[in-house]
Amino acid sequence: MRNVAIVGAGMTRFGKYQDRGLKELTNEAVTAALESAGMDKQGLQVAIVGNAAAGLITGQECIRAQVVLREMGIDKIPMVNTENACASSSTAFQLAWLYVASGMYDVALALGVEKMYSEDKSRTMAAFGAAVDVEQLREIMQRLKPPSEQKAGGESGAGKSRSMFMDLYAAAARAHMERYGTTKEQFARIAVKNHNNGSLNPHAQYREVYSLEEILASPMIAEPLTRLMCSPIGDGAAAAILVNEEKARQYTTEPVWVRGTALVTGSDTRAEDGGETARAAQRAFEMAGMTPRDVNVMEMHDASAPAELMLYEELDLCDEGEGGRLIDEGVTEIGGRLPVNTSGGLLAKGHPIGATGVAQIYEIFQQLRGEAGDRQVKGAKVGMTENGGGMVRGEAAATVVHILSV
Amino acid sequence: MRNVAIVGAGMTRFGKYQDRGLKELTNEAVTAALESAGMDKQGLQVAIVGNAAAGLITGQECIRAQVVLREMGIDKIPMVNTENACASSSTAFQLAWLYVASGMYDVALALGVEKMYSEDKSRTMAAFGAAVDVEQLREIMQRLKPPSEQKAGGESGAGKSRSMFMDLYAAAARAHMERYGTTKEQFARIAVKNHNNGSLNPHAQYREVYSLEEILASPMIAEPLTRLMCSPIGDGAAAAILVNEEKARQYTTEPVWVRGTALVTGSDTRAEDGGETARAAQRAFEMAGMTPRDVNVMEMHDASAPAELMLYEELDLCDEGEGGRLIDEGVTEIGGRLPVNTSGGLLAKGHPIGATGVAQIYEIFQQLRGEAGDRQVKGAKVGMTENGGGMVRGEAAATVVHILSV
Repeated sequence: MRNVAIVGAGMTRFGKYQDRGLKELTNEAVTAALESAGMDKQGLQVAIVGNAAAGLITGQECIRAQVVLREMGIDKIPMVNTENACASSSTAFQLAWLYVASGMYDVALALGVEKMYSEDKSRTMAAFGAAVDVEQLREIMQRLKPPSEQKAGGESGAGKSRSMFMDLYAAAARAHMERYGTTKEQFARIAVKNHNNGSLNPHAQYREVYSLEEILASPMIAEPLTRLMCSPIGDGAAAAILVNEEKARQYTTEPVWVRGTALVTGSDTRAEDGGETARAAQRAFEMAGMTPRDVNVMEMHDASAPAELMLYEELDLCDEGEGGRLIDEGVTEIGGRLPVNTSGGLLAKGHPIGATGVAQIYEIFQQLRGEAGDRQVKGAKVGMTENGGGMVRGEAAATVVHILSV
Repeated sequence: MRNVAIVGAGMTRFGKYQDRGLKELTNEAVTAALESAGMDKQGLQVAIVGNAAAGLITGQECIRAQVVLREMGIDKIPMVNTENACASSSTAFQLAWLYVASGMYDVALALGVEKMYSEDKSRTMAAFGAAVDVEQLREIMQRLKPPSEQKAGGESGAGKSRSMFMDLYAAAARAHMERYGTTKEQFARIAVKNHNNGSLNPHAQYREVYSLEEILASPMIAEPLTRLMCSPIGDGAAAAILVNEEKARQYTTEPVWVRGTALVTGSDTRAEDGGETARAAQRAFEMAGMTPRDVNVMEMHDASAPAELMLYEELDLCDEGEGGRLIDEGVTEIGGRLPVNTSGGLLAKGHPIGATGVAQIYEIFQQLRGEAGDRQVKGAKVGMTENGGGMVRGEAAATVVHILSV
């Protein structure tokens, strides 16, 4: 397969845009990506668009790519709509890579775009429910509870789908506390770090800095998760332009290469294979010919603060049960040995579902080009993104890992 | 890129399945495809699933592939959800081809699955509305009217989305009649042919044979379209297994090769470039190193009878305005020079939106292997599928053409 480079990337600031729809958000992100690449829109040869929720929120299913891209004068080229819940646009990014790596096209656009806010809040909530197999939901809830609660049984009261996801994260966090002595302060420290990073990112939805006490004192969503430990609902778009080696040399002196890409789904034999995140990372590193120790900066799927702490362990940044120690020691802060979620992550940058995957790519693209401003990781040469989406039978429906380097 | 072959394909009969959901339909089609290939489900390395309407009909968005495939014990492998309205699973087929052609995987599953029937009929109707850009709808209606009606202006009364699509086909049919003298009997003859073909296909939703008079006498939907000239609403699934050359030799002595694949979207300059169907076909034939004259059997997107007649012209089977003559002369019947829609097409086999693309592939797979029974085209060596989906700014949002050969 051919070498593939990113030569341009752009995104909107994530946020609550009552007056802007999918078309406007797309236009801003794609225009920024084209400008970043120094490319005219006529240069695009194929477009892959990730969106998770427009069908349920706006009624626009089926051909979202065509609706948003034709509006800005992009036509004729193949357009593929893809979704994988919160990993929709990292899936789009893999497909864009594949179209170029295969030799079928030389220039591909990967776009993630999402509009979560709706005047009808029930529509936003329905979109979260669509990211699980509803028939399987009760079984999952029971399995993820910490041991001390499993006998109690009964319903968890997860009537609304978003709180259902946070209930799942909270249950997993409580289990981690019971097993390893992890504290709620350690989870809160993840949120302190990511909100601090977000304050340095002009594209972040939330740019306030919070103390540990403020994180812990914000309203309780589900013990031990307070509101500031949960990713917010938001709107936004992110775009990246991928090209073959010849085009890369033509458009830039600073290409960011795609070294590894892996997409996996969960299994019924997690205990034996280490789970889907570990499998995705392993496959991506094999493809890249690298190990986790080669990575200088990582974006990962901190839909809640405990999720990031547990991902440290699943991604082998530390041993099992040692995630709390890692955040205590500042290893994953900007300035630490391996900065994580320098963008502010889902917690502070925001999490417009289908836009998140390419927004992670955008952050690593900026970091590896040395364009990340106040949040720049000095000398970053290799970056990684990890993006998870949906849930079936107790595991992520889609986990996508990308490894990029200069 | 590597050579890619289809080594197995399967489908459910299309129809109205009040008691069967997406999971059951998937299981039947994928199991049939695996049996046809002589492959165990553990042999699959990546799966791409096309579905257009589950989000609006069942509330299951985002991770439909994982929900239906995990249920039948397929896990761990990459699963990609894609949609392009009525061309959803031909898009999935192109992606499956791409994963194998690129060298990333050796065995890919392409699945199309759709459940259109719902006890709540408004959900089925909403799914059709999602295949257009609703903001653009009024402009399209005006543009597609025949010249004599354009001045009248006003609303067409297309309150319901499915009738809206049939209104569009009817308007285009009336324009064709005005311009070229095409008759409603010629459109009806397409329906006679396809219902006759469907009567020979055990997987067809409708297996009745109709006379020209019966087609014309069935209830009027929108002049000149009667009900029997419109594709029905239905449920179903179709699956195909694509492999690289080495695996093809391992699994079968009768591989069906994918010679060309093209996906395009419409443009704002149709007058200059011949339209999206012509562009898709041109690209696919270039890739295959073939011309339309090499093809022995074709499946095309006869969502209405006039659509097939007009596709004869767009696909260069005859000159512009000569489609009526082609059907009159029997050229596209089984036994004619170039049989079209031997499966019964969308009109008689049925049209469960997201399942249609791979179902077309299934028909050509059977024809090229000589396994099409009473509807076998003798000596067929090369086949083609054409599948259109959705509409933006007056043209198909996605048109996909595949060329297959033994």
